[in-house]
Amino acid sequence: MQSAVIQFSQTLERWVASRGFQGAVIAVIVLSALSIGAKTYQLPAWLEQTLALLDGAITVFFALELTLRLVAHGGRLSFFKNGWNLFDTVIVLVSLLPLSSADTVLLARLLRIFRVLRLVSLVPELRHLINALIKSIPKMGYIALLMFVFFYIYAALGSTLFAELEPRLWQDVSVAMLTLFRVATFDDWNNVMYVTLEAYPLAWIYFISFIFLNAFIFLNMMVGVILDVMTQETQEATEATPLATADSKEQELAQISQEMARLSQRLAQLQQR
Amino acid sequence: MQSAVIQFSQTLERWVASRGFQGAVIAVIVLSALSIGAKTYQLPAWLEQTLALLDGAITVFFALELTLRLVAHGGRLSFFKNGWNLFDTVIVLVSLLPLSSADTVLLARLLRIFRVLRLVSLVPELRHLINALIKSIPKMGYIALLMFVFFYIYAALGSTLFAELEPRLWQDVSVAMLTLFRVATFDDWNNVMYVTLEAYPLAWIYFISFIFLNAFIFLNMMVGVILDVMTQETQEATEATPLATADSKEQELAQISQEMARLSQRLAQLQQR
Amino acid sequence: MQSAVIQFSQTLERWVASRGFQGAVIAVIVLSALSIGAKTYQLPAWLEQTLALLDGAITVFFALELTLRLVAHGGRLSFFKNGWNLFDTVIVLVSLLPLSSADTVLLARLLRIFRVLRLVSLVPELRHLINALIKSIPKMGYIALLMFVFFYIYAALGSTLFAELEPRLWQDVSVAMLTLFRVATFDDWNNVMYVTLEAYPLAWIYFISFIFLNAFIFLNMMVGVILDVMTQETQEATEATPLATADSKEQELAQISQEMARLSQRLAQLQQR
Amino acid sequence: MQSAVIQFSQTLERWVASRGFQGAVIAVIVLSALSIGAKTYQLPAWLEQTLALLDGAITVFFALELTLRLVAHGGRLSFFKNGWNLFDTVIVLVSLLPLSSADTVLLARLLRIFRVLRLVSLVPELRHLINALIKSIPKMGYIALLMFVFFYIYAALGSTLFAELEPRLWQDVSVAMLTLFRVATFDDWNNVMYVTLEAYPLAWIYFISFIFLNAFIFLNMMVGVILDVMTQETQEATEATPLATADSKEQELAQISQEMARLSQRLAQLQQR
Repeated sequence: MQSAVIQFSQTLERWVASRGFQGAVIAVIVLSALSIGAKTYQLPAWLEQTLALLDGAITVFFALELTLRLVAHGGRLSFFKNGWNLFDTVIVLVSLLPLSSADTVLLARLLRIFRVLRLVSLVPELRHLINALIKSIPKMGYIALLMFVFFYIYAALGSTLFAELEPRLWQDVSVAMLTLFRVATFDDWNNVMYVTLEAYPLAWIYFISFIFLNAFIFLNMMVGVILDVMTQETQEATEATPLATADSKEQELAQISQEMARLSQRLAQLQQR
Repeated sequence: MQSAVIQFSQTLERWVASRGFQGAVIAVIVLSALSIGAKTYQLPAWLEQTLALLDGAITVFFALELTLRLVAHGGRLSFFKNGWNLFDTVIVLVSLLPLSSADTVLLARLLRIFRVLRLVSLVPELRHLINALIKSIPKMGYIALLMFVFFYIYAALGSTLFAELEPRLWQDVSVAMLTLFRVATFDDWNNVMYVTLEAYPLAWIYFISFIFLNAFIFLNMMVGVILDVMTQETQEATEATPLATADSKEQELAQISQEMARLSQRLAQLQQR
Repeated sequence: MQSAVIQFSQTLERWVASRGFQGAVIAVIVLSALSIGAKTYQLPAWLEQTLALLDGAITVFFALELTLRLVAHGGRLSFFKNGWNLFDTVIVLVSLLPLSSADTVLLARLLRIFRVLRLVSLVPELRHLINALIKSIPKMGYIALLMFVFFYIYAALGSTLFAELEPRLWQDVSVAMLTLFRVATFDDWNNVMYVTLEAYPLAWIYFISFIFLNAFIFLNMMVGVILDVMTQETQEATEATPLATADSKEQELAQISQEMARLSQRLAQLQQR
Repeated sequence: MQSAVIQFSQTLERWVASRGFQGAVIAVIVLSALSIGAKTYQLPAWLEQTLALLDGAITVFFALELTLRLVAHGGRLSFFKNGWNLFDTVIVLVSLLPLSSADTVLLARLLRIFRVLRLVSLVPELRHLINALIKSIPKMGYIALLMFVFFYIYAALGSTLFAELEPRLWQDVSVAMLTLFRVATFDDWNNVMYVTLEAYPLAWIYFISFIFLNAFIFLNMMVGVILDVMTQETQEATEATPLATADSKEQELAQISQEMARLSQRLAQLQQR
């Protein structure tokens, strides 16, 4: 009987991974997205009710689909070690919460919107993109910290100097940071500056230096990301040609080519000494 | 007699491809562009009439030119397999449609504007540029899809939360997407935010996170395109390298091996100097 | 006596090219720039007069300096073959024109401003920068043409459709192009769009497609320039290591290194076949 | 006794460089940053007093920490040769100045804000970032000078032509430069232009040419920085390549020559397979 269970689990796994099943799930997600969009319009009562029904059906479908995938995986907890499975589970569980009292209707609607994100977890190409984006976050962490320090210092200066001129923009350090973010996006920043120029004729130094520092750090951040991605790509390309077990002619050629490139670089280096 | 037709067709082909003919066509396109521009000004009646006549003449000229090219190609349907030929044909056919009733005068005027695009199909450098642009579209497809998903989720959240505060900007999901596009271009986005901040003091999280995600995805898109174009260029450069005498892989390998042995010897000589 | 002239010319040439003389000329240009700036302020009468005197002195100084350089060059017309010399001459000649009638006072003031550009022709690093900028113009020519065609088509469409809604922005094709340039810089473009949306609910397609096309072409232009500059730098680096007359060990090493890099590339290429 | 002092100094040095001590200093800096931020809010009197006390404590802590580090370094003046130590010293000394009279209270508050910058001098990653930023400044110096010259010329032209139309924006060369900076950031630049268009219908040439020149120079600047950083990274990577056993140039050459001969043989073998 045990083997029957295993066999069932394997059949299910194949079925769940089939193009047809995946396509059906994507179709339901798109339907869910459309119904979420539709709800933002003014709708006749019967359509509202249809959408509510559809919503219930989608919730049930997602719960079933997740259960199937969990069973297909053998029902083990290792299923949740994959970040994307965990992500799907959280989204499904959240939409199963019985949030129907008047207070929580808005929350329920908001949470349902995040179901569209399941599209990302299903389409492999989108998953790769998100993985790549997440990977590049830590590399920008220190630049973000540096930027935050600069914003904080400028915000503290700004709210100390300009708070009485225009409290709406500079009343405290958090409001001032929002104002500086506005200045950094160039959105009507001259109006922000002109008010301060009347009281402090040298206030332009504050704004111009902020904009330059900002653009400068941002530029370096961009260059850093570009270089980083390039290095990564080169590395991946190098790793893709395994050096150790070069068993075919092509692989050996690649290896020799790489060694030659390395020698060529060393020669160039020698020459510059 | 068959051969006479072929000969005629070849002569025509040479004539159609000559600098003089191409120059004449470009001149007519520029004339057409100027007449299109001129019509947007307030003009005296006689000039309006002259332009209408000119317009007819240009239409006839384009139809003739296309026919000539088709005949020069031997009149076969394979003429339309080239995307640019098809493009020219559609533009010429559309301007031949008898759109002169009051309703369709505007449409006819609009369609005539697209004749300026024929400049692109005639100048080889512009054609190359457009080809390059079209080639890079699919590579950005998934990033565009990801961006659309993010826009959709933010628009659904925004129109759920803010619709009652400012219906003009958030009334439904499509209007909200337009508003978010405005925020993404930084056009007066602070006014959009300040209205929402009064009702939801934490609304800045919505806007700042949207702007950061957007800039982040866009940055990656840009880096992707740059890398892509670079890889392509390198590949093309490599393929363009003529391998003159070496006609088989083995011969090339032998040749490279010999050159390396020679270089190795030269290095050894250098070292002994 | 002929030789005395040559000797004098050579002495003069050394003197004109000396650091001291160059420094003096730069000092006079900076003085001229300051006096030009000063004239834009409200000044007391005596200072105005001093500035007018200073202006005359600077004009005389520049004329003398140019004459000296021309004489140092041997007085030959080949002096004007150098673009920067011609540039200096035009600027000096123009400021010598007797423009003192009431009508031309403004013109004279404007022309005098361009004397600051002489700073660029004198400081070698700035001259190099400008040369590099000028060199990169033709490479962008076709992209600029393509952009112009797109702007023109959108402007013709826009002024045909929207002219009656807001004549100030769309009255004819040239005004529409200026409006589209404004949209391309994202300056308050939503106000431009909202007016048109009331009459044509689908007008957003016009604006969004324009912005995307624009950003897309601009992005490609940027990538093109980056790649171009990179290729150029690599080429210059390659050319800087002459292959033919490799007379020192270092040059030979460079040559071998380059050949190896080339072989390495060919191997990589073989491997991919 | 001398040796006891050295031992003490060494123990202190280890202690000062320990993770625990560094963590404590970072904690105090963050506390200082929070107290600076807190002061920008409306606070009850008791909290204001607590913050004032905290401020004194932090000042004393920083003075002590710097003394410890100076003693740990052996009390020598070479301590100040390190730019970051000098930076810390200046910040500490400045916050020790007895600025408590009514006039200087604001100045004291402003100076205290810069203590947050000590975070940058303590966290090595931030220090590296700042070092990299500072290094790239001189390379952009001439581009900045060129940009300044262009701004100055356009500002002189603008204030000569437009001063009477809108004195607030063009009254003199310095105000005009600020206006041009606004135009360069695309902030509401159309309003700036439309006023001038009424008096000078060709004023758009002034603005469009300015924007293009600006974007063009900026683009080149960016490309320059990217290339520069790339070259640097490549160089560093090359220098980092350990050349282990080869201690003289000749030996290295011999080694490379041998490796090449080996590669050449392997290629020959491959070819015969």
